[in-house]
Amino acid sequence: MSRPGTPEREFRSRCPIATTLDIVGDRWTLLILRDLILGKQRFSEFLEAPEGITTSVLTDRLARIEAAGLATRKPYQTRPTRYEYRLTKKGRDLAPVLEAISKWANRYYPGTGRVSKQITAR
Amino acid sequence: MSRPGTPEREFRSRCPIATTLDIVGDRWTLLILRDLILGKQRFSEFLEAPEGITTSVLTDRLARIEAAGLATRKPYQTRPTRYEYRLTKKGRDLAPVLEAISKWANRYYPGTGRVSKQITAR
Repeated sequence: MSRPGTPEREFRSRCPIATTLDIVGDRWTLLILRDLILGKQRFSEFLEAPEGITTSVLTDRLARIEAAGLATRKPYQTRPTRYEYRLTKKGRDLAPVLEAISKWANRYYPGTGRVSKQITAR
Repeated sequence: MSRPGTPEREFRSRCPIATTLDIVGDRWTLLILRDLILGKQRFSEFLEAPEGITTSVLTDRLARIEAAGLATRKPYQTRPTRYEYRLTKKGRDLAPVLEAISKWANRYYPGTGRVSKQITAR
């Protein structure tokens, strides 16, 4: 089943929560989107995240992020070709999701850092 | 590394987004929390969700939800013992996350249903 404005893909139901989770509902995608919102653009920058993402997971998730229309890439270097990624409006519009997630963690896990202001400021 | 107020568990970083995703960042947990917010309480009710969760995944996620303090259970029947689940305040406080997720899907995937009002009304 395909949906208007999206690449052909299967969604589990018409529920908006299930649909969003089908796109970003794994342990890594929202962390890459966090880094994109905070201004990171390059593969090597995403790899530096303290969560220790592997190159193969990062490659896979960046391709999915681009396929879902959440970011675009363009080459900034040849031999070898390397790409910079930038959020689309659709991707940037996930900021309120990240903000709500951050606020919840700050309330219940006092040891967590503060990122919600940095996210909403962009 | 353990955190105050939680069962002992590992978090990938001090980032509040990573911490939340370590708890609810999979394809199913937030869907069960959606159903709890919408008033479902019993295993058989969660199984009816249109996304087609399996009994083994549901059993696993309910145990994690309880261990994370997002819901409590109490028996409503014996031989065999069956339990009803209810959200704690900590679990109910994830409603703004579900609401933000729903709004984003409604904006970009017009075929999705509307649940955000039902979620915030509870």
